[in-house]
Amino acid sequence: MRVEIVAIGTELLLGQIADTNSQWLGEQLAANGIASHFHQHVGDNHERIISALRIALSRSDAVIICGGLGPTQDDITRSAVAEIMGVSLVRQDFLVERISAMFASRGRPMTENNLLQADVPEGATIIDQTRGTAPGLICPVGAQVIYCVPGVPYEMSDMFTRAILTDLIARSQAEGNTSVIASRVLRTWGAAESGLAEAIDSRFDELENSDRVTIAFLASGIEGIKVRLTARGDNVEHAVALLADEEVIVRKLITDAFGDVIFGVDDETMEHAIASRLVARGLTLGLAESVTGGLISSRLVNIPGASQWFRGSLVSYASALKHELLGVAQGPVVSAEAAEQMARGARELLGADVGLSVTGVAGPDEQDGQVPGTVFVGLAVGDSVSHVSFRLPGDRARIRSYGAISALNALRQTIDRLL
Amino acid sequence: MRVEIVAIGTELLLGQIADTNSQWLGEQLAANGIASHFHQHVGDNHERIISALRIALSRSDAVIICGGLGPTQDDITRSAVAEIMGVSLVRQDFLVERISAMFASRGRPMTENNLLQADVPEGATIIDQTRGTAPGLICPVGAQVIYCVPGVPYEMSDMFTRAILTDLIARSQAEGNTSVIASRVLRTWGAAESGLAEAIDSRFDELENSDRVTIAFLASGIEGIKVRLTARGDNVEHAVALLADEEVIVRKLITDAFGDVIFGVDDETMEHAIASRLVARGLTLGLAESVTGGLISSRLVNIPGASQWFRGSLVSYASALKHELLGVAQGPVVSAEAAEQMARGARELLGADVGLSVTGVAGPDEQDGQVPGTVFVGLAVGDSVSHVSFRLPGDRARIRSYGAISALNALRQTIDRLL
Repeated sequence: MRVEIVAIGTELLLGQIADTNSQWLGEQLAANGIASHFHQHVGDNHERIISALRIALSRSDAVIICGGLGPTQDDITRSAVAEIMGVSLVRQDFLVERISAMFASRGRPMTENNLLQADVPEGATIIDQTRGTAPGLICPVGAQVIYCVPGVPYEMSDMFTRAILTDLIARSQAEGNTSVIASRVLRTWGAAESGLAEAIDSRFDELENSDRVTIAFLASGIEGIKVRLTARGDNVEHAVALLADEEVIVRKLITDAFGDVIFGVDDETMEHAIASRLVARGLTLGLAESVTGGLISSRLVNIPGASQWFRGSLVSYASALKHELLGVAQGPVVSAEAAEQMARGARELLGADVGLSVTGVAGPDEQDGQVPGTVFVGLAVGDSVSHVSFRLPGDRARIRSYGAISALNALRQTIDRLL
Repeated sequence: MRVEIVAIGTELLLGQIADTNSQWLGEQLAANGIASHFHQHVGDNHERIISALRIALSRSDAVIICGGLGPTQDDITRSAVAEIMGVSLVRQDFLVERISAMFASRGRPMTENNLLQADVPEGATIIDQTRGTAPGLICPVGAQVIYCVPGVPYEMSDMFTRAILTDLIARSQAEGNTSVIASRVLRTWGAAESGLAEAIDSRFDELENSDRVTIAFLASGIEGIKVRLTARGDNVEHAVALLADEEVIVRKLITDAFGDVIFGVDDETMEHAIASRLVARGLTLGLAESVTGGLISSRLVNIPGASQWFRGSLVSYASALKHELLGVAQGPVVSAEAAEQMARGARELLGADVGLSVTGVAGPDEQDGQVPGTVFVGLAVGDSVSHVSFRLPGDRARIRSYGAISALNALRQTIDRLL
């Protein structure tokens, strides 16, 4: 089963937006053992979309089209696919009703062109929308298939996970491919990719000729380095068992080399790691953020049920607020002392059990004699008030993002050590 | 002159790295009025690279290949291009010397496989390396041309700017094409894509056969809808003038239909719109965030110089903090009254001139009898304390993101109205 990704949109060709969809889909297909040999980008042009699809169908078993399903004049994926299928577009009454109802529920007037999104090629199946208006499509072309999904990443990923992957796996099994893939991502923070690769090098060599187990690195920028383990088994139990064995081996290699750098698996983020520790101990958290500007707080509240353990954050961007509200002594506010006082102050002001603070310099200018990238993290955990410091690379946004995850990682390790 | 970009590397197909090169090249080509109708990604496989190149040459005048020029076994771009050209690879002594000297100067041992980078298809011209080891190549294929550059972004961009662009412009002018492209993006918040399309519909019709001006929509999710205007002129002045005229027309159509929904152009974000208004009036801002959890604050501090006008934010996630620190009366905290009290309280607690607050329900559960997506924004601007409310779609993260930009947009419009 070979799947080709065709991303549609003149904005991709003009470089106005990045094609993150092909990367995401590529990663998902690989994790599920489905081959993908080509990706294409093509503009909002009927003839060229047709040409790209014919090429894709000449060399791949299935095609995923991202984009061109919206309500505007340049959204022409539906008509191009209908032409490839050799069928007409038929307006579906139930989709008309659904789209109308969605506008009504938001109290917004619906213009006529929105109903273009109710047009479906004859013989195609709908992938219901749960996050937007344009439904996705599963379009058979003889024994092959074209999937159409919106270009909006979170609508696309939802439809892939909910409908397309299942369909692809069913098709793959119908071809007699009954092997099953299981994969797991180990998420690390604090080790470089080259260092991780060196730590696992011996295992890479052992697996070189294995058609059962593979290891890959995914550099994920501000979220650290992911190590993806993939196992191909004869059935689910077999794949899961192979994967579990491999995880033990790789975890040991990483931990022996770098200590406690694995903070989660699969979709578990650093904030999940914090939430689970606080919930287990019945503790609440309060933050004082300066350089991170609310970023840590905004990450933590993404966890459902955060109100159980998260009190809040004082974003004390103006130095005066650090002195007046957090009790930081007069003097430089980018310092280890200020970070500790902020953590203690946050705990008191916000009525929390645990206090975490971040102060630093995002740049472009120095502050308090500290160069951009300097970050102090304060930790008020149990009876101990302590700090750690970092020198982080990158521009303002990068320093802030690295600062946020570094602070959360320090809190994770401090809770594990002290509580 | 149509240029196709072919990015080579199995890591692109597996989603292990993002293809930022195609985006960057697309932007550069567009800015120089050179058309690009297709991009391709293909893995490190000889046969499939050959196939991708033949397809590219069948529909484009020139091809830029990124990647596959390194020293390892899977770097096979050179041999694939030689096959397409119908020539042999010849090892160039001067390149052998140059590569050897580079290793010597860095005090690193050179393994034999590095000399693969000295192999050049007969008839090709070298693009000198200034940042790495593998030279680039300009490879004539009849009247067409294939450019080969390394996949490392900063080596690629250097070679493009230094050698490829000049060559492309010379070829384009030799064809008699001297046109120049200019483009501008109008950024909107508060109008649906379909509504914008309808508002501009008459203009779309007028431009249908224009080869001078085009309009496109870019749905940018939580950042609103972008309207891109592109003009092709005989020279820079002509393109800029065409673009300016078109902007006047489209701005009027949008503003007549939806009022003040255009908040910026090109790279200007909503936070830039807020910053410029506060700086112009010499005012400072303080926030009280509940449902947005620090997201508004973290967006604002991305603007360099934010300390000039941003005091800070109290993320009052626990209801008790709203009562204790912001003076919100006992009772429901998801209400218009609470939002107004929070805005007033933020202004006082944080010592700011303007107060902005957000309270609401991100879900999945109801709160204070309000359904998920309900958001109240409080505005303490000048002598007036007011509120606006929204019913926002999506999951927790989505409601929070929409809430943040909706609140900033309300502040923008309120400042324009009152101050």
